[in-house]
Amino acid sequence: MMRSVEEHLAAVLSLATPLPVETVPVSEARGRVVAASAVAVLDLPSFDNSAMDGYAVRAADVPAAGVRVAVVDDIAAGDTRRLSLPPGGAMRIMTGAPLPEGADAIVPVEASDGGTTTVAFTEVPGVGQHVRWVGEDVRAGDEVVSAGVSVTPGVVALLAAAGIAEVAVHRRPRVAVFSTGDELVPLGTTPGFGQIVDSNQVMLGELVRAAGAELVHSGHLPDDPDLVRAAFADPPGDADLVLTSGGVSMGAHDVVKEVLLAAGTVDFVKVAMRPGMPQGAGHIGGRPIVTLPGNPVSSFVSFHVFVLPLLRRLAGQPAAASLGEEVGAGVVEAAVAWRSVQGKVEFTRVRVAGGAATPMTGQGSHMLGALGAANALAVVPPACAAVEVGQRLSVIRLLGSEVGS
Amino acid sequence: MMRSVEEHLAAVLSLATPLPVETVPVSEARGRVVAASAVAVLDLPSFDNSAMDGYAVRAADVPAAGVRVAVVDDIAAGDTRRLSLPPGGAMRIMTGAPLPEGADAIVPVEASDGGTTTVAFTEVPGVGQHVRWVGEDVRAGDEVVSAGVSVTPGVVALLAAAGIAEVAVHRRPRVAVFSTGDELVPLGTTPGFGQIVDSNQVMLGELVRAAGAELVHSGHLPDDPDLVRAAFADPPGDADLVLTSGGVSMGAHDVVKEVLLAAGTVDFVKVAMRPGMPQGAGHIGGRPIVTLPGNPVSSFVSFHVFVLPLLRRLAGQPAAASLGEEVGAGVVEAAVAWRSVQGKVEFTRVRVAGGAATPMTGQGSHMLGALGAANALAVVPPACAAVEVGQRLSVIRLLGSEVGS
Repeated sequence: MMRSVEEHLAAVLSLATPLPVETVPVSEARGRVVAASAVAVLDLPSFDNSAMDGYAVRAADVPAAGVRVAVVDDIAAGDTRRLSLPPGGAMRIMTGAPLPEGADAIVPVEASDGGTTTVAFTEVPGVGQHVRWVGEDVRAGDEVVSAGVSVTPGVVALLAAAGIAEVAVHRRPRVAVFSTGDELVPLGTTPGFGQIVDSNQVMLGELVRAAGAELVHSGHLPDDPDLVRAAFADPPGDADLVLTSGGVSMGAHDVVKEVLLAAGTVDFVKVAMRPGMPQGAGHIGGRPIVTLPGNPVSSFVSFHVFVLPLLRRLAGQPAAASLGEEVGAGVVEAAVAWRSVQGKVEFTRVRVAGGAATPMTGQGSHMLGALGAANALAVVPPACAAVEVGQRLSVIRLLGSEVGS
Repeated sequence: MMRSVEEHLAAVLSLATPLPVETVPVSEARGRVVAASAVAVLDLPSFDNSAMDGYAVRAADVPAAGVRVAVVDDIAAGDTRRLSLPPGGAMRIMTGAPLPEGADAIVPVEASDGGTTTVAFTEVPGVGQHVRWVGEDVRAGDEVVSAGVSVTPGVVALLAAAGIAEVAVHRRPRVAVFSTGDELVPLGTTPGFGQIVDSNQVMLGELVRAAGAELVHSGHLPDDPDLVRAAFADPPGDADLVLTSGGVSMGAHDVVKEVLLAAGTVDFVKVAMRPGMPQGAGHIGGRPIVTLPGNPVSSFVSFHVFVLPLLRRLAGQPAAASLGEEVGAGVVEAAVAWRSVQGKVEFTRVRVAGGAATPMTGQGSHMLGALGAANALAVVPPACAAVEVGQRLSVIRLLGSEVGS
């Protein structure tokens, strides 16, 4: 009996406990997940100020265009004097400069004759115009960023402006990657007959880093049960997650599966998906482990479908509204028709442009050529044997790709 | 006369010359742009091999289910022997193991009795089934990645598998960021009356880094023409691009504008957009400079609309098909109605979920509160005074945000 993609995703996500919380400077928090409400220290704005370069006035003092008033002071942004506007006067004021007490409107310099001793205006100011009032954006004590929010540059700006210099975030997941299989030779070596370059190791490492996690170890394990057992017993770098590729299928040399089945803490299953059928997930040495298939494309797809949501959960992101949303899929239309496998979810490597997806040629699980130009995986449901032109499909954005442009 | 957004984007992009090319290990190339066709060193696959765990046979030797054949050898992945299949025999073979000469089909282990000395099958193999033929994915000498492609983890996998250990990529842009204005105090300091926290400096630094560029300097300049002039004459870190925020409006203390107007190599313009009207772009000391407005949200929006496309071009990305595509906008529907400014492009901070955009409250150019939850900018065209429910809008994904989930 095959497991559905949703069932296996749920099993993988059940491995995740959000990682411990640490407090870091806001400038080092990007990509982390906020662990506790961030509360504004300051009002935003923290004082009434001008939204324009112009003149601060009492609106009542300028009842008509052409009225001339005395310019009694000049307020730059950063002026820390607490000024008071005398009745009938005006003060030159720059964008962001504090409103003098008594003033209730700003006349933009464009609506003036630009005078520096006296000034006349071409418009009648309305009370409150071009004034930014204290606290109108954020009040000190307001929650500005909720727990579970990922820190983007925009969040950094908000935290900094609100006077929050440090923020509580979850630790980044530490991941150890092991490729397995005696057929693999390191990148930079010329493979002999029967050998292939160990592309999975470098690929998984870059996927881990692109996901914002920390790659604490990347290595290769030969098909030797003792060496595999030792590596899993004490993975380097105090990893929060161990990832492997290969050695989990039906073969007589599937050493990862052999060792982990003996340990009894990892489930090996067939998942109704293409590519990526043989999957394993569980714990080893108290740590979550996900064993990905060895076919490079199967490994690549499985990372996006199962490991990326797991890393997000470890990093502190809350559960999505649905398992479908855990993988962060958007929706596009099929630009052309293509055939799909029935009874399994097919993850078709596609290029999305202008809101439409076109499949790449070469969809075999060993075929990497398509990854030179693909930017997404189209999720074709099990019931669908043929995708039709214009059919709406979920797509998972490939890590590091830009989709939609 | 105001410039259109498209005109100013074209002016900003005209500053870009792709940065020099360097050759780096594939594992360090992620996020860079490939500068010259990457050509496969190896065929993929580089030898005929099995797509399944099972038995290599001559299909003609298994004319019917139940026929029993001798198992004469056992081929693991990584087996470097050049074997030959004797007539009437079978060899156990693992996924990825080389096909013995003479074999033309694989029977999966699931369709066998699993025998190790002799084996019988439950199916009749077709010629070529479950065989991956040499070069069927990629041929040595094929271009696998074109110039202009960004290196994603998938591209890394393809390059590695094809035996390409190093790749020619453009250098990452080096960026110096200067916030300006006497009203700013450093993050971590309590601002006095009339002062605000310098959130732009940390925000622009994180935007630069999130864009994959290198932040070589981040600092603050007071409203002192001599200090501003000196900083621009010799920006630190041998920057490829200088970014400033503030000091470019109509005010008497707009020192950035004053210094650069005197230099005569920077255009200061009003762009028909909200927020973000006052913009400047040009060269100083032979380097591109973009002067962003000081309002935090104006600065944030302008970075996404003008600076990010410029950084992509510096990093070696080719021109997009249209200026609209330079900003990488996708398309979503408006979830609710909202009013917009006429005569200008309005960049509304929105949250996109389930393919629909909802505007955040607090859209003033000084209002950062909305950045706690926004994940995109909706691009509302100048002719549109009111966005209708269901109206299709271009959206620019905010750097570091995930959109569409």
